[in-house]
Amino acid sequence: MISFASDYTTGAHPEILRRLAETNFEHLPGYGTDAYCESAKEKIRAAVGLPEAEVEFIAGGTQTNAVVISSMLSDHEGVIAATTGHVNTHEAGAIEYTGHKVLALPQKEGKLRAADVEDFLSSFFADPSREHMVFPGMVYLSHPTEYGTVYSKKELEEISSLCRGYGITLFLDGARLGYALECQGNDLSLPDIARLCDVFYIGGTKVGALCGEAVVFTRGNRPPHFINSVKKRGALLAKGRLLGIQFDTLFTDGLYFRISRHAIEAAHRLRGIFSSRGYEFYIDSPTNQQFIIMENEKLEKLREKIGFSVWEKYDDRRTVVRFATGWSTTDGELDELEKALLTVDSEK
Amino acid sequence: MISFASDYTTGAHPEILRRLAETNFEHLPGYGTDAYCESAKEKIRAAVGLPEAEVEFIAGGTQTNAVVISSMLSDHEGVIAATTGHVNTHEAGAIEYTGHKVLALPQKEGKLRAADVEDFLSSFFADPSREHMVFPGMVYLSHPTEYGTVYSKKELEEISSLCRGYGITLFLDGARLGYALECQGNDLSLPDIARLCDVFYIGGTKVGALCGEAVVFTRGNRPPHFINSVKKRGALLAKGRLLGIQFDTLFTDGLYFRISRHAIEAAHRLRGIFSSRGYEFYIDSPTNQQFIIMENEKLEKLREKIGFSVWEKYDDRRTVVRFATGWSTTDGELDELEKALLTVDSEK
Amino acid sequence: MISFASDYTTGAHPEILRRLAETNFEHLPGYGTDAYCESAKEKIRAAVGLPEAEVEFIAGGTQTNAVVISSMLSDHEGVIAATTGHVNTHEAGAIEYTGHKVLALPQKEGKLRAADVEDFLSSFFADPSREHMVFPGMVYLSHPTEYGTVYSKKELEEISSLCRGYGITLFLDGARLGYALECQGNDLSLPDIARLCDVFYIGGTKVGALCGEAVVFTRGNRPPHFINSVKKRGALLAKGRLLGIQFDTLFTDGLYFRISRHAIEAAHRLRGIFSSRGYEFYIDSPTNQQFIIMENEKLEKLREKIGFSVWEKYDDRRTVVRFATGWSTTDGELDELEKALLTVDSEK
Amino acid sequence: MISFASDYTTGAHPEILRRLAETNFEHLPGYGTDAYCESAKEKIRAAVGLPEAEVEFIAGGTQTNAVVISSMLSDHEGVIAATTGHVNTHEAGAIEYTGHKVLALPQKEGKLRAADVEDFLSSFFADPSREHMVFPGMVYLSHPTEYGTVYSKKELEEISSLCRGYGITLFLDGARLGYALECQGNDLSLPDIARLCDVFYIGGTKVGALCGEAVVFTRGNRPPHFINSVKKRGALLAKGRLLGIQFDTLFTDGLYFRISRHAIEAAHRLRGIFSSRGYEFYIDSPTNQQFIIMENEKLEKLREKIGFSVWEKYDDRRTVVRFATGWSTTDGELDELEKALLTVDSEK
Repeated sequence: MISFASDYTTGAHPEILRRLAETNFEHLPGYGTDAYCESAKEKIRAAVGLPEAEVEFIAGGTQTNAVVISSMLSDHEGVIAATTGHVNTHEAGAIEYTGHKVLALPQKEGKLRAADVEDFLSSFFADPSREHMVFPGMVYLSHPTEYGTVYSKKELEEISSLCRGYGITLFLDGARLGYALECQGNDLSLPDIARLCDVFYIGGTKVGALCGEAVVFTRGNRPPHFINSVKKRGALLAKGRLLGIQFDTLFTDGLYFRISRHAIEAAHRLRGIFSSRGYEFYIDSPTNQQFIIMENEKLEKLREKIGFSVWEKYDDRRTVVRFATGWSTTDGELDELEKALLTVDSEK
Repeated sequence: MISFASDYTTGAHPEILRRLAETNFEHLPGYGTDAYCESAKEKIRAAVGLPEAEVEFIAGGTQTNAVVISSMLSDHEGVIAATTGHVNTHEAGAIEYTGHKVLALPQKEGKLRAADVEDFLSSFFADPSREHMVFPGMVYLSHPTEYGTVYSKKELEEISSLCRGYGITLFLDGARLGYALECQGNDLSLPDIARLCDVFYIGGTKVGALCGEAVVFTRGNRPPHFINSVKKRGALLAKGRLLGIQFDTLFTDGLYFRISRHAIEAAHRLRGIFSSRGYEFYIDSPTNQQFIIMENEKLEKLREKIGFSVWEKYDDRRTVVRFATGWSTTDGELDELEKALLTVDSEK
Repeated sequence: MISFASDYTTGAHPEILRRLAETNFEHLPGYGTDAYCESAKEKIRAAVGLPEAEVEFIAGGTQTNAVVISSMLSDHEGVIAATTGHVNTHEAGAIEYTGHKVLALPQKEGKLRAADVEDFLSSFFADPSREHMVFPGMVYLSHPTEYGTVYSKKELEEISSLCRGYGITLFLDGARLGYALECQGNDLSLPDIARLCDVFYIGGTKVGALCGEAVVFTRGNRPPHFINSVKKRGALLAKGRLLGIQFDTLFTDGLYFRISRHAIEAAHRLRGIFSSRGYEFYIDSPTNQQFIIMENEKLEKLREKIGFSVWEKYDDRRTVVRFATGWSTTDGELDELEKALLTVDSEK
Repeated sequence: MISFASDYTTGAHPEILRRLAETNFEHLPGYGTDAYCESAKEKIRAAVGLPEAEVEFIAGGTQTNAVVISSMLSDHEGVIAATTGHVNTHEAGAIEYTGHKVLALPQKEGKLRAADVEDFLSSFFADPSREHMVFPGMVYLSHPTEYGTVYSKKELEEISSLCRGYGITLFLDGARLGYALECQGNDLSLPDIARLCDVFYIGGTKVGALCGEAVVFTRGNRPPHFINSVKKRGALLAKGRLLGIQFDTLFTDGLYFRISRHAIEAAHRLRGIFSSRGYEFYIDSPTNQQFIIMENEKLEKLREKIGFSVWEKYDDRRTVVRFATGWSTTDGELDELEKALLTVDSEK
């Protein structure tokens, strides 16, 4: 069945599979020490505009968050995140499993606001009992957020400057980073992000890879013996080539950006299909995830024809559902969606 | 360069890549809930001869060990392992990271002996101060071991019966299980292992997959909410299809066993090449890893031509080196090795 | 200087010191296995009205919370607490250090409301993505709360019944339990608490002991090998007599209740002193902690004469301060406070 | 019953109880910030001959080991200890609970030998796969050891110099430090220990206190925000005065050393009692713990009259038992022991 349930419902961009096959018989050293990993790192360093950046590959997003956060925080520190942040909601407590607290702050449209972060930091550091409390040691942002929204350059600059003022690490979770970079109205380039964040990752799993995220340490701040920390958390793949070849492919001839743009264009058409039929959007998302308010009856009928995700209850009669596009979304699939909606809307 | 450095120096068996490509455009649900995972589980249940076994896929070996051990042990328990066991030596402390001690016991040729385990258990449970000590809650075996040796049916039966007598979980790390199953002299079938162990895993990464291990819980003993525990440890892949399709392929038409047999035959020839030239073996391994004692000078010359692993110092003059075969080892590669050895031996 | 900064600013009730001295030369076994621990447990079982309750002593409150919560939760579970709960704010992340998330819910006057808990539980268990989330496995209440307020019998019954309906453990942090039991308007007896909670503790440190909390498992639900879990967390005192003798003394001839009543009466007088002088209370607390809104200038002057705690900013001009009474509060000290206030109020 | 089971079977030295009573009504701030803690720290700095040493108090020994080790190690590091070291055997896995491995090395009479440590370190740092292994980041010594033996100045100098050469922290567990300092033949003064170790602790619990250990960081190396780390591990007592007053008393007029000397003299007499009656010693201990080989039948008869600890099986007929002296051991008790032995020896 055609599905818009997520951006990970199909395999990898064919170019990735082609490269995996092409290199399959080469003997390469393990654990990320092969030439493809090195080449991919070099290309990523170029793309982010930081020749000295340190790049590491990890298989999945939750794993990346747990490894980065726990290896960069000091013992007395926790990580600030929006209440809706992935690390606070949908990682089964993976951050707390490493012994660190997620300090959840209010959000607006999935985003942390600099003012809220500042209020929190200033009252924390004024609190006389702060040695009995978890110190804020990092700010975690997802970009795009869990609701598809993106930070503007101004917003990220404010948070970045705040973090630097307080000596706090700024970490950006870019599980879907490509879709932020290519969305309409975006004014934050990859080099901007690299300049403003202390560490971030470029998501592969949700942008055309089989698996894999590329972590970028921007300021010579990769924790010492990082590979050991990765191994200790069970996150070091023996066949590191699997990640290296994928990212080398994604960052050759701009494939990562092309995939992202393709999904954004598909999302734009998808958005049009819904809005032209009078559907309301739960949130105004410029990226590949679209959140639509749907009557429960229609939802039940539509799900027989098309895959999508049930997000949350809206009211007694309606539900928020998510439709996502990805590298593989085709015009034909969008045609099918339109047809299915037509049928569902006309019934009754 | 041709390499025998490990069984993970090349990619995946071509049949796996073919199947990944073939299914690439199918929309599948994530996190291991797709039909290929289900089909692979069904085939594995058949292969191990336990229709009720619970099978779960995890990306890597250290991760699998950490997830299985930490989710199955009680708070007061640790895991018994040979001092040379992978969990005790080469996992960067991944087990301790989960808060559990590895209780290291002496080994012989990489194997735990039932008598040593029994001595340990009987004196532990007789010790009046045992509530201040780490309780043995699991026995961890690697099969084949880190030295390529294998347990006999009788040895495994003894340890299994000991564990059941004491109510202790028996966990077998089968990162290279295929090579044990197919080696000469082996009398332990996959159903034997399933019958004797409480939990074990069938290694994919080192037996022809890009990544992936299949954990088999044999007695309805999968921890409740296991997926949550996997997620909490950062070990849940979004595109679970990557593991499902690979294992489905490996367990179709006996591919897993054919790959293993191929590597065993190659190891047999490799062994012959070395022994016919008068090399000594550090240990008598019937599986795909061969440990050879090599003069340091020869080692330096040979490594310019052929890849292999430096294992450990033997004496001031000699070093133990490891040569491993795998799914992709060819006769041509073995010919090259023979030629290189000839050259190296004749120099001087 | 006279201080109302907390209920732990003086030593122990003299009767405790007397008993420590009296028994000092007796040879007793260690680690809580002595006769005084046994006798104290027996007296506590009688006081809570549960002959089968299991009682254990731990030195401090944060330690008790961490030990109880982490040894009772399953791997996939976290603990629900009010945002203002001690475990969520002032324990330096001790719960997260054990690998479990604190699931913070809104509070009213420091208390969790059954309706909020119910909403959370019902939407959690209806959420299709819950296997990626932290399961609520326990509800944590502090009684009295961090703001001195107490749950009514009806409120505790509602939460208890909710927890039992969902199969979730109810844990009551009674660091200051005596003050709740003896406060005006309280309708929750110790046996009520024992009947309604699955586990709770009777605080010693803040109710006249040098240190020590008595954990009561009410339903045969003490985790197996609990002493081992206590030891593993570094919380097992060698001279367990220190806790046993103290609790034996506190639960002889109702000393625990007398101490509590004394502090409540002192708090009542303290309250009168402030209210008669026109001070506003931040919250209406019936227990030994009183929260007063004080002008910053007065605060600065008063703190030169009398000790108290600065709690939080109220507005630009005023601050919330805390005055606590305890076992050692005397009429003379309250006279001094009154005098100091008079001076401060009359200045300017 | 008279007992030599351990050095923690009686309460505290009477001078400690006297000082607790004397200061009982003083209002003091909590959590170790009171004047007695400060005074005790000052006296300890003087006693160890390091005016800049940082001193912190923690309630118990296992807790101290866990806090110190886990807050000083880096993520990739573990701690070297003798196989018989307390952290490796009798702490219920408290170190592993903090996520760090104990790297157990062979021991001789309970002691690590510099040569074994050196072998381990040199091969570790030569191992090409060390990034997959736990790095040795600390050496843990107990002094006296678990078998009552002590390191000589030369032995400690060798290990210290080795650690400094490798940049590894040297941590000495002095749970019974006084008995080492005062034993016959000892040539290691407290200032020697402070000079040679990076961190060590002066045990109170087993040397006359009710509880409490004084950790000394000798080189400005107390971890930043150490109090927060202590709190996070549940190890921060609200009434910190309990530790401050005890250590202030122990380090006033040399009480700590007098208590230790007293126990050593008692142990000397105890030793004589056994040896004059022909008993064999399991190990030659100069400190307050004596290990005697006793026939099982005698053991059973003796334990009816006198308390002692059963240590381990010696052979089928005999058992190693431990007799310990302490601050409270009297000549009368030793007379009773002698009498009891006489009876037991003469029976049969």
